[in-house]
Amino acid sequence: MVQVLSDRRSNARSAGGEEYEKRRKAILLAAASIFREKGYAAANGDDIAKKAGMDRASLYYYYAGKQEIFRDMVGEAVTDNVLMAEQIAGSTDVPERQLRRLIEGLFSSYSRHFPYLFVFVQEEMTRLTKDKSAWSATMRRLDKRFDDAIIKIIQTGVDAGSFTIRGDARLAAVGIIGMCNWSHRWFDPNRGHDGAMIAATFSDLVLKGMISRLD
Amino acid sequence: MVQVLSDRRSNARSAGGEEYEKRRKAILLAAASIFREKGYAAANGDDIAKKAGMDRASLYYYYAGKQEIFRDMVGEAVTDNVLMAEQIAGSTDVPERQLRRLIEGLFSSYSRHFPYLFVFVQEEMTRLTKDKSAWSATMRRLDKRFDDAIIKIIQTGVDAGSFTIRGDARLAAVGIIGMCNWSHRWFDPNRGHDGAMIAATFSDLVLKGMISRLD
Repeated sequence: MVQVLSDRRSNARSAGGEEYEKRRKAILLAAASIFREKGYAAANGDDIAKKAGMDRASLYYYYAGKQEIFRDMVGEAVTDNVLMAEQIAGSTDVPERQLRRLIEGLFSSYSRHFPYLFVFVQEEMTRLTKDKSAWSATMRRLDKRFDDAIIKIIQTGVDAGSFTIRGDARLAAVGIIGMCNWSHRWFDPNRGHDGAMIAATFSDLVLKGMISRLD
Repeated sequence: MVQVLSDRRSNARSAGGEEYEKRRKAILLAAASIFREKGYAAANGDDIAKKAGMDRASLYYYYAGKQEIFRDMVGEAVTDNVLMAEQIAGSTDVPERQLRRLIEGLFSSYSRHFPYLFVFVQEEMTRLTKDKSAWSATMRRLDKRFDDAIIKIIQTGVDAGSFTIRGDARLAAVGIIGMCNWSHRWFDPNRGHDGAMIAATFSDLVLKGMISRLD
C-alpha cells in the first residue's frame, strides 16, 4: 500500500503539471502556517490537510507525511538563500555592501520562513552529517555553497585591502554565520523582533567593530 | 530498591566527607574522558565505572546514571564560566580587555570541557526552557547571569564612550554569544583547532570590525 502510494507520488511529481504544482504549493503554504502556529513537533497531517482545504487522503497523494513536507519546504528556503548569497557574492557591490546585503537577506529569510527554517537549524542540521539520505546530501552541498559565498566575499575584501582580519576568511565566516544562526534560540518575528534592525546591528558589529572610531 | 539507593546517594552526598568528594571527582574525570572518547549518546555506566576503577554497583552509590553525571559535570563547568564572566565584568580592566578575556576564557573552557559542554549547548540548552527540574532552573539562572555579565561589559563600554554599537547592549551580547556558542558545530580541539587563536580572531572581529582602519 505504502509502496503503491509512494510510486504514485513519484510519478505524479515527475509528470509535474500546472495543477499538481499549484496544489503542492498550497500544501507547503498551509504546512508553513501550521508549523508556525503549533511548532513542528505538534503539527500533524490532518491539520495541514484541513488548512489546505483537502482531506488527508488527497494530501497523502502529494506527501508521505510532515517530514517530507518539511524537507521540501526547508529545501526551497535554503536553496533560495544559497542563490541569494551566490548572487550577492558575484555582484559588483563592494564587499562591505555585499556582506550587509547577505546578513539582511538572511534575517529576512528567517522571518519569512519562521519557524520551520529555525527547526531545521536546530534539529535537522545536526543530523545531516549522520543521515545518508539524498536530501541530506543535497542540504550538505547547499550548506557548503552558502559558506563558500560568504568566504568569497570576505576574501575579496581582504585581497582588495578593504578588510583586515586576524585568522583566515573561513574562520571569520563561521563567526558571522554563527552570530546569525544562533538567532534560532531567541529571534521571534512574532514578538516584535525586527529582522532588518538586527541585521544592521550585526553588520555594524562585524564590519565596524564596537571600539569607537573618530570617523 | 531504586528509592533506597537514591536515599543512600542523597545521604552520602549531604554527609559529604573528603573520601566521598575524592571518589566523586574521580568519577567525573572518568566520565569526561569517556564522553570525549565515545560521545554522550554511546557512553554507558559500565565504561565510566571501569575507567574510574570501580564496579557498576559502587558507581551507582554516587550517581544514578550518565545523565546525573553529565548534569553534575556540566553544572560545574557552566558555574565556573559564570564566575569567570562575573569576575571579569567586575574587574578594573577596560571593557575591551574584559571582553577579550571573556571570549578567551570561554574557548579555553570549551577546550577543557570538550565535548560534553558542547553536548549541553546543542542538546540540553534547548530543553531547559521546557524541563521543570531543579537542575534546569539552576542552569537557566546561570545562563542569565552569564548573559548579564557580557551585557554589563558592553554597556560599561558604551557609557564610557569607548564602544559604539547600533541597537542595545543585549543585542550585541547575543550576537557575540552566538558567534562563540555556534562553535559547538565545528570546533574540535582534537583536530588541531586552536581555541586561543579563534578567541583572538573573534575578539578582533567584534571589537575592531573587518573594515580596514588606518590606525
